[in-house]
Amino acid sequence: MVQRYFVDKEQWSEQYVSVTGEDVHHISRVMRMAPGDEIICIKKDDQLAASCEITAIENRQVLCRIVERLEENRELPVDVTIVQSIGKGDKLEQVIQKGTELGAHSFIPFQAERSISKWDESKARKKVNRLEKIAKEASEQSQRSHIPEVSLPVDLNHLLDTAEEFDVKVFAYEDEARAEDFHSLADHFAHVKEGMRILVVIGPEGGFSDREVSQLSAAHFETVRLGRRILRMETAPLYYLSSVSYHFEELR
Amino acid sequence: MVQRYFVDKEQWSEQYVSVTGEDVHHISRVMRMAPGDEIICIKKDDQLAASCEITAIENRQVLCRIVERLEENRELPVDVTIVQSIGKGDKLEQVIQKGTELGAHSFIPFQAERSISKWDESKARKKVNRLEKIAKEASEQSQRSHIPEVSLPVDLNHLLDTAEEFDVKVFAYEDEARAEDFHSLADHFAHVKEGMRILVVIGPEGGFSDREVSQLSAAHFETVRLGRRILRMETAPLYYLSSVSYHFEELR
Repeated sequence: MVQRYFVDKEQWSEQYVSVTGEDVHHISRVMRMAPGDEIICIKKDDQLAASCEITAIENRQVLCRIVERLEENRELPVDVTIVQSIGKGDKLEQVIQKGTELGAHSFIPFQAERSISKWDESKARKKVNRLEKIAKEASEQSQRSHIPEVSLPVDLNHLLDTAEEFDVKVFAYEDEARAEDFHSLADHFAHVKEGMRILVVIGPEGGFSDREVSQLSAAHFETVRLGRRILRMETAPLYYLSSVSYHFEELR
Repeated sequence: MVQRYFVDKEQWSEQYVSVTGEDVHHISRVMRMAPGDEIICIKKDDQLAASCEITAIENRQVLCRIVERLEENRELPVDVTIVQSIGKGDKLEQVIQKGTELGAHSFIPFQAERSISKWDESKARKKVNRLEKIAKEASEQSQRSHIPEVSLPVDLNHLLDTAEEFDVKVFAYEDEARAEDFHSLADHFAHVKEGMRILVVIGPEGGFSDREVSQLSAAHFETVRLGRRILRMETAPLYYLSSVSYHFEELR
């Protein structure tokens, strides 16, 4: 498979792309490529991918000639931001890796009341750096044109502020799977239109606290059922994203 | 949350359930329960759950009185068997844990031509034991009434024999995500009816070999697209199962 690299918009001209940063090392040392070899460059956040021929490898840049623009659209028709409660072990890593493959637009770690571990500022910075790297790699692997952002963790107040920018706000509430008059995911999608921005909040292992449930509800977050079974916190966002893809890409 | 235990059919009478085996230790030692405490017993493969009161704890059995039969249906309306190629590290464990939460009926490990690791007979037995344990725990966690079976690994010939018992046979083929005239998952679901048995084959990291693709196609396996992005081998079955749940449980 041809190697793919994300390249900032500023590095593109009409006929050439200049690859800089860590990817120079990857192209010249790791992949041992040479002038004449082919790579695919993806213009960040621009849905544009191009097949390119390497014309020169220098210390700080790899210069490439655009051979052909590729028609590719790998992005979900709606922007889904996953607010994932901080949980045990490497759950957040798993969610970001697989959630990126499944098309998430961005991720916000959430310090929930019942989150078992707590991130202080320096831990948070380190963690987010690592999570951003995972998102970048997963994005390349799944051949997307967008790399999901990962923000610093937020608390409930900060989350409620952020929520105002979104068209649709939901939270996955375990009891919904048990309720008789549950709110099905299909009812929820029925009022989502292409291009909308959705915020999905996933609770921690111990579930949301009563205070969180009442504040999310007061801020007009809907609850949805994600099938009949009780899902682990790291499985719920994958179900949601898969269903968005199925509904908006496959069902059409 | 009330603890849940799977109990074989033979252990049920009209008014009582006798819990035996390892669960006796779990109830008496790990959970330190006593007569009068409540547990939920699930009759294996019978969609029946009952709220029970412990009446006696003995060395080899815990005797419980049935207080109330619970109406619960947590099983997918179609039976999905996931044939998962043997891959690197703990990918199969991940698929079985999360695939069970998402409602899979059973799992068959597949020794694909390009599977990176190879299981000999003694390794296979050990692995399958461990995988069965993971399926049982995930099934309890997600409050299902069925524990997915995990079979010993099969090769292509064995797989083609097994396939004859199924109503619908598909394989996830990476190139489908790139094809212009792809076969969408919704087209595929359009001819699946409730109660049908589906066999889904997921390739290894390096993809199916040409020989595997041609033999699966000759045996009337369809290919399907699972959204626009390229999914890792351990993410593909989760997408498929989530979409089955969305389509047959939520969309209705």
